[in-house]
Amino acid sequence: MTDKPDPYDRLLALGLTLSPPLAPVANFVGLVQVDKLVFLSGQGPVSPIHGYRLGKVGRDYTAEEGYDHARIVGLNLLSVLHHELGSLSRVVRVVKLLGMVNATPDFAAHPAVINGCSDLFVEVFGPDIGKHARSAVGVGSLPGNISVEIEAILVVEESA
Amino acid sequence: MTDKPDPYDRLLALGLTLSPPLAPVANFVGLVQVDKLVFLSGQGPVSPIHGYRLGKVGRDYTAEEGYDHARIVGLNLLSVLHHELGSLSRVVRVVKLLGMVNATPDFAAHPAVINGCSDLFVEVFGPDIGKHARSAVGVGSLPGNISVEIEAILVVEESA
Amino acid sequence: MTDKPDPYDRLLALGLTLSPPLAPVANFVGLVQVDKLVFLSGQGPVSPIHGYRLGKVGRDYTAEEGYDHARIVGLNLLSVLHHELGSLSRVVRVVKLLGMVNATPDFAAHPAVINGCSDLFVEVFGPDIGKHARSAVGVGSLPGNISVEIEAILVVEESA
Repeated sequence: MTDKPDPYDRLLALGLTLSPPLAPVANFVGLVQVDKLVFLSGQGPVSPIHGYRLGKVGRDYTAEEGYDHARIVGLNLLSVLHHELGSLSRVVRVVKLLGMVNATPDFAAHPAVINGCSDLFVEVFGPDIGKHARSAVGVGSLPGNISVEIEAILVVEESA
Repeated sequence: MTDKPDPYDRLLALGLTLSPPLAPVANFVGLVQVDKLVFLSGQGPVSPIHGYRLGKVGRDYTAEEGYDHARIVGLNLLSVLHHELGSLSRVVRVVKLLGMVNATPDFAAHPAVINGCSDLFVEVFGPDIGKHARSAVGVGSLPGNISVEIEAILVVEESA
Repeated sequence: MTDKPDPYDRLLALGLTLSPPLAPVANFVGLVQVDKLVFLSGQGPVSPIHGYRLGKVGRDYTAEEGYDHARIVGLNLLSVLHHELGSLSRVVRVVKLLGMVNATPDFAAHPAVINGCSDLFVEVFGPDIGKHARSAVGVGSLPGNISVEIEAILVVEESA
């Protein structure tokens, strides 16, 4: 009847582990919730578990490698959600991603990169909850030279 | 009493035709609605009717050409709205555009480009509904080398 | 009991003056409010009081100079809020910033730049209201060659 998997079961089945979220590097927070809308700060492919991916896609990395980086970014977004919301099961809908690839000026395969995050969210939450609107673009540079940064808007169950 | 034109009458008067929306190229959707807020995925100037605009504004295209591209992007956003919402008449307010120009590093006329979309929305919906907040910026690269990508947030009448 | 300072007292104490907001250069507006959510158009470091900051961070400006520019951008966002909402005291929460630095391809200190705006908001509104989600990225070019552009989402008290 429902296509709503348990996100933690899905992560386990996928062999994926959430890192503890990195503290924001400045005067900001990992997410802000307004009623049922959650606005997540941009995350990068940096994690004590999954390592650091620094450099430009199209020069230092292929689109396929970028896909893996975007998947790590997705895990970091999930990590922030898990720690701030208490449970990923409170996610009702992934609404929107803005996926920004640190790319060379002639790079053109941004969708193939950001799919790493989009696919993860569909795998973890199922298609009904996980499918989202998105934009995938190439930025000229990113903090600390990370290869991908993605921010997200979600709908969550409001606290009882 | 009201400044609310019929959007289809306006498109007809402007001689504009909506293309069928292109299917998203990956694991995402054209829009997500949360109550009355609609979040639209980024669209580009690619359409079976209006053709493909690939290249960089400031090198391959002038700002005036970019304006025309942004107008095609606006038509594609309208096309997604029409097909997903059933009717453009359900649009209550265009809230926000993020207009991203695939531009050379020294390009500076981004507002003149993104006006192609902003003007279209005001022409189609009238100023009360069509005027919006926006940002216009220059990105280093875009998917498939499209010249402009624009994402949007709107308010729509909730379904009865 | 409360950590909610008066924003005008704070501006005075900081020695900061709001410029009159610049009129949008095209068919758009400074902000759109949807119930209690406010979507602010991107602003730059341009002001009749604080001058114009044009050029690229990492080439024409250091990150420290960029910080000062982002602070001017923050003042301009506050100026729009003041003029459109009637009072900064109506701000209940700064939700989200998208901070875009006009940067060289190898620039990496975007957070240090965007902090100029983030710190201002925390100083003016206090941490409970002022702390926000954010993304800080490097774009390839910006309108009129401004050095920083920042857009914002806030929650305000709905009109009585």
